[in-house]
Amino acid sequence: MHILSIQNCRVIMSPQNIRPLTLDRCSINTATLGHHSPIERVIDLVARHGFGAIAPWRRDLSGHDVTTVSRQIRDAGLAVSGLCRSTYFPAATRQDFLANVEDNRRALDDAAVLGAPCFVLVVGTTPAGHKGLDLARAQVLEGLSLLLDHARHVGVALAIEPLHPMYAGDRSCVASLSEALAMCDTLDPEGRGGVATAIDAYHVWWDWKLADGIAEAGRKGRIAAFHVCDWLVPTKDLLLDRGMMGEGVIDLSAMRALIEAAGYDGFVEVEIFSNHWWNQPEQHVLEACGRSLQLI
Amino acid sequence: MHILSIQNCRVIMSPQNIRPLTLDRCSINTATLGHHSPIERVIDLVARHGFGAIAPWRRDLSGHDVTTVSRQIRDAGLAVSGLCRSTYFPAATRQDFLANVEDNRRALDDAAVLGAPCFVLVVGTTPAGHKGLDLARAQVLEGLSLLLDHARHVGVALAIEPLHPMYAGDRSCVASLSEALAMCDTLDPEGRGGVATAIDAYHVWWDWKLADGIAEAGRKGRIAAFHVCDWLVPTKDLLLDRGMMGEGVIDLSAMRALIEAAGYDGFVEVEIFSNHWWNQPEQHVLEACGRSLQLI
Repeated sequence: MHILSIQNCRVIMSPQNIRPLTLDRCSINTATLGHHSPIERVIDLVARHGFGAIAPWRRDLSGHDVTTVSRQIRDAGLAVSGLCRSTYFPAATRQDFLANVEDNRRALDDAAVLGAPCFVLVVGTTPAGHKGLDLARAQVLEGLSLLLDHARHVGVALAIEPLHPMYAGDRSCVASLSEALAMCDTLDPEGRGGVATAIDAYHVWWDWKLADGIAEAGRKGRIAAFHVCDWLVPTKDLLLDRGMMGEGVIDLSAMRALIEAAGYDGFVEVEIFSNHWWNQPEQHVLEACGRSLQLI
Repeated sequence: MHILSIQNCRVIMSPQNIRPLTLDRCSINTATLGHHSPIERVIDLVARHGFGAIAPWRRDLSGHDVTTVSRQIRDAGLAVSGLCRSTYFPAATRQDFLANVEDNRRALDDAAVLGAPCFVLVVGTTPAGHKGLDLARAQVLEGLSLLLDHARHVGVALAIEPLHPMYAGDRSCVASLSEALAMCDTLDPEGRGGVATAIDAYHVWWDWKLADGIAEAGRKGRIAAFHVCDWLVPTKDLLLDRGMMGEGVIDLSAMRALIEAAGYDGFVEVEIFSNHWWNQPEQHVLEACGRSLQLI
């Protein structure tokens, strides 16, 4: 019999002749190193290992002058691939919701100072005492709509990161790329920009419509970031058991090919939450990242 | 400002006047009791607590004559809501794949003897040594196509259960209701039946397109089973930390309303994998199920 395939499901094939990935096109998200060292040291380490960019977390900037950090990053020869991450939008009270929005507005300013092309949004989810995701989704949309003009003004895209559905209960009501893209359509129907998606392989690899979603995102100019790590089998912890690229079952080469075919030419950013890797020396982690990236 | 909602996203509202759920319309999946007791005792317990049906696992039937068990279930006044679950289809070799298919063919016969309306399929995923999900999806489709005539012949629906995407690496390449429904369309384009879906709240609650999926499944007569438990916040284990209905964040009343509005009039089946509940006396678990079901 002939091979069956699901109707309307674009099969993702590992590419034969994808352009090799060089480290100058890669970025290190500072979460990958476990937030052990001060940002100055992390900038230096990332630059010395040959990566082209860095993606700091806001906690790494706490107590620092952002303009100074921005200059340190440039002086090290690095670009910034994004600023992580938003304060969750949903809240049980209107006052708390608006405070969350304002917190994210200030973060957009910091992202602009850093020269980040995007501010990565982990949007949050259902406030305590509620069930389902409708309320959270409505609050997230309203929060984004309150920030969109400012994002455009400072030139930093709001990058909605759909999280893996296992985080729908505590971290993100946006659980698939198609949902993030629908939010972009709602907020920016004319395609003026200012809102996009951050596509993390770990969060979306399972989706049978992934190829379609990436193609749509590219067509509409809505891929602001591409994050990689790997899905381990077995996965022992919902948050802190992500793998180094190549250790797991995600076909990262195929996904990179889709992302690049969709027109994305930004950095490939490594973001690994892992008790295992966070217990390794930072140099060792960066060397592993470098080796692994060249295989995808 | 007016309340925003995602374009094309049907908002799921908790219903005001859904018909109360009585236990005669509910089923206990034997996994809920942790497989501690022999099936005869479980049948007796489930019947004595007032439930209308039971869903045995194949491991509960091991070493038993299925015809005898079927009679014991009828004699206790219970129906069978489904037989759990399939042997995984995907395999690294053709021989192993075909052996998996034949194993599932025999299980369909057992399901028929039990009077089960469906055989619940946890389809399996990528064989060792492979990446991505395309190969697994193709094998699952072929396996189902090899079984469909037999399923129709014995009058037991192949019920594809989309599993939560956190199981895509080790249990099921079918990770969303839309994917399961697309497989049904591929296998049964004319709607002759024999293949359907098993919708488990735990696996699909996060999906922004859930309402559309349930409506489509109902319209096409492809809801073979409806399973319930709850998503705990925090969830501490990927497999064995599911909650009793009401303990978590799923809006089960809203989901039941959608399922019933879609035309499903089968049993509401409780299936809870939980170290906590498996350590409770079986009577205690069944009483908690009974109380909790009446609240959804």
